[in-house]
Amino acid sequence: MVADMNRPIRVTIWNEFLHEQTEEHVRGIYPEGIHGRLAQGLDGRGPFEIRCATLHDPEQGLAAAVLDETDVLVWWGHRAHAQVGDEAVLRVRDRVWAGMGLVALHSAHFSKIFIRLLGTPCTLRHRVAAEREMLWVVDPHHPIARGVPDRIVIEQEEMYGEPFAIPSPDEIIFLASFAGGEVFRAGCTWRRGAGRIFYFQPGHETYPIYHHADILQVIANGIQWAAHRI
Amino acid sequence: MVADMNRPIRVTIWNEFLHEQTEEHVRGIYPEGIHGRLAQGLDGRGPFEIRCATLHDPEQGLAAAVLDETDVLVWWGHRAHAQVGDEAVLRVRDRVWAGMGLVALHSAHFSKIFIRLLGTPCTLRHRVAAEREMLWVVDPHHPIARGVPDRIVIEQEEMYGEPFAIPSPDEIIFLASFAGGEVFRAGCTWRRGAGRIFYFQPGHETYPIYHHADILQVIANGIQWAAHRI
Amino acid sequence: MVADMNRPIRVTIWNEFLHEQTEEHVRGIYPEGIHGRLAQGLDGRGPFEIRCATLHDPEQGLAAAVLDETDVLVWWGHRAHAQVGDEAVLRVRDRVWAGMGLVALHSAHFSKIFIRLLGTPCTLRHRVAAEREMLWVVDPHHPIARGVPDRIVIEQEEMYGEPFAIPSPDEIIFLASFAGGEVFRAGCTWRRGAGRIFYFQPGHETYPIYHHADILQVIANGIQWAAHRI
Amino acid sequence: MVADMNRPIRVTIWNEFLHEQTEEHVRGIYPEGIHGRLAQGLDGRGPFEIRCATLHDPEQGLAAAVLDETDVLVWWGHRAHAQVGDEAVLRVRDRVWAGMGLVALHSAHFSKIFIRLLGTPCTLRHRVAAEREMLWVVDPHHPIARGVPDRIVIEQEEMYGEPFAIPSPDEIIFLASFAGGEVFRAGCTWRRGAGRIFYFQPGHETYPIYHHADILQVIANGIQWAAHRI
Repeated sequence: MVADMNRPIRVTIWNEFLHEQTEEHVRGIYPEGIHGRLAQGLDGRGPFEIRCATLHDPEQGLAAAVLDETDVLVWWGHRAHAQVGDEAVLRVRDRVWAGMGLVALHSAHFSKIFIRLLGTPCTLRHRVAAEREMLWVVDPHHPIARGVPDRIVIEQEEMYGEPFAIPSPDEIIFLASFAGGEVFRAGCTWRRGAGRIFYFQPGHETYPIYHHADILQVIANGIQWAAHRI
Repeated sequence: MVADMNRPIRVTIWNEFLHEQTEEHVRGIYPEGIHGRLAQGLDGRGPFEIRCATLHDPEQGLAAAVLDETDVLVWWGHRAHAQVGDEAVLRVRDRVWAGMGLVALHSAHFSKIFIRLLGTPCTLRHRVAAEREMLWVVDPHHPIARGVPDRIVIEQEEMYGEPFAIPSPDEIIFLASFAGGEVFRAGCTWRRGAGRIFYFQPGHETYPIYHHADILQVIANGIQWAAHRI
Repeated sequence: MVADMNRPIRVTIWNEFLHEQTEEHVRGIYPEGIHGRLAQGLDGRGPFEIRCATLHDPEQGLAAAVLDETDVLVWWGHRAHAQVGDEAVLRVRDRVWAGMGLVALHSAHFSKIFIRLLGTPCTLRHRVAAEREMLWVVDPHHPIARGVPDRIVIEQEEMYGEPFAIPSPDEIIFLASFAGGEVFRAGCTWRRGAGRIFYFQPGHETYPIYHHADILQVIANGIQWAAHRI
Repeated sequence: MVADMNRPIRVTIWNEFLHEQTEEHVRGIYPEGIHGRLAQGLDGRGPFEIRCATLHDPEQGLAAAVLDETDVLVWWGHRAHAQVGDEAVLRVRDRVWAGMGLVALHSAHFSKIFIRLLGTPCTLRHRVAAEREMLWVVDPHHPIARGVPDRIVIEQEEMYGEPFAIPSPDEIIFLASFAGGEVFRAGCTWRRGAGRIFYFQPGHETYPIYHHADILQVIANGIQWAAHRI
């Protein structure tokens, strides 16, 4: 799992791809899907070779052949967690154990794969709201914080608050506050077998958060870290 | 899950109870089963109300009614991990998340419930051998080490060695070495939701390890810690 | 250092006791000193035998005879960190290593003893302000959170923000946000030798924070935890 | 402190350089000093620009001008811990806080700088002996373990055993056992401010341990890790 440092990192962006098809407002923000936007926004921010996969692909986009060519899997899911089959979940879990990186975004906290790898309920406090989030770097010397400002302001985001029922993270890199006063461990890492996991909270589908350069930079750093490159 | 500190801790000792029925040598060591021996050996070492359950009981000994009356579940399994049904595993997982303690002994490292709660492969180096183990206290100020000598010598034990594919433990209380030179994180803790988990390595069925007073003391401490009492 | 569980915990509240003597506003809030208020507010919240000590006492209130009779030292200091002599600091450090608990409050983050025990700069973001703080329980199953509401609101507090240059805490129990949007690891633990350390951020001298019942409850829990009792 | 990734890592190997001058046996093993041997053995194992410094140099080899040109400081000391002045210790501490790496070898566990940065007594069990040590990789996916075999055997080493009074490490990469059965957390990391610290136990002066290729590889990896390069 120590990759050849000179070849590109093979990134697969997996998206359930539902909101963008059924909600006009979301489609307006992400006309090519959240996966399409991420692919575009991450391009050039690291030595990446990016492909996309969605729930609507064969084997839910998580076929062995896809995972075979994946160094880091980026995951966005929300409404369809239950539709991801247990077999696919175990396939992903086994790849992470074998060294594949996982970058879990936003409501991926409630995906089967995240809960399976962390072993906790992964519940959190939650409010449907359009409120200002401030994201603070807590560990400025961590590679995932490179080139990221001390503070990122997101004008509108859904509120995610503590207690977040996760195992004690190996590293906490970002903490967030929301206009309502809530706080959240918004950027955390864990190791599972040979694989590295990075969870990053921003990204509710109804706000243009993946158009924000600093957010993309964090995700790009997270991918490189999860690939054992930084 | 903060128990009334004055009532007894309701301990259920779960054992697959196979070796003792099919291998004469093991039956000689544990004529009443590993569970029976543990129940006897733990009695009086804490404010315990102890019952036993085995794979052969209804719902594999893990019925909701049993778990309803369990503050801490002690688990010994080896050959029959695969026979424990997924439904029972999820029932135990949910109870741990809700605050039930889990003390996982020896080859329980490979039980479905342990892997499910930790999220890692839980593989280890292994040698069928009858060799001397030395168990050292690494964290002498941890409540689980109370009344336990600096060093416990086990004359004959199967070898378990690193790398042990577990998540970075919240606490490492015991490290072991074996006559062959291997080392092992033999006593570790994790939190999962409201529940506390203690893994303790000693206890291969072919040696009389649960007749050793210091080993029993560690398990008794582990139960009290997993019950949030110490 | 495993105390007799039946005798009271001998608590020494150490205060530099300067603001209350020179600033009328502070004296109005704490006419008997911050130490006097804490002694009164903690009384009855645990099996405590409380005494006070200040910088103005012989050997700066940190004589060997005082420490000999102290199970947990509560520390409030701000302006006079440099006036605490190195000999006293080493005396306290050695006691912590030998098992004495330390509860460090508010600007104690910059005390010589705190930096000495943690080994990091302990710098933080800071704004002189009278702004609303919200304190959230992140680890609801930790003994220090017992009987404490999910959220504590402090109407006015000085802002302390991340990055807080501390070693990765053993446990994070409270996170705070401030009206300005900043976040802070407001309640953290570390072990040092046989001693337990709890840092708790609330308590700027110009606001009546130690009159707040929930804040006192957290400190009382912290003392019991630091005394190895819970 | 994020170094230009293309320029060499400036390594300063600091050695008290006493045993090699006064003990014929040690001089036989390290005719050019432990520092000289390490400089030679590390050469070519990474993008290093290596210089040496000893206690006998101006300002004990730890002048500001030396530290100004140091990305990672490797430290070997044993008999002369007390001779290193407090001013030099604080100078090194402040550099570590500002991002300089520290690789502390063997009896450096008792150096002033190590205790100052860790904040604990750093005591350990100890036996003057010439016994076989086995060093096991516990965290095979950590960059410091790259290219290192699962197990390193050192034919003769002094025994260092648990309990080792350190803060809970951020990462444990190596565990050791000794012929007498003792165990030891032999390779550990901590962060302090912007600086990374790696402690590695092998290296008693009376055995040719720094002639062992695998040991040198671990130290070379540790330097690169402490320089934030891997």
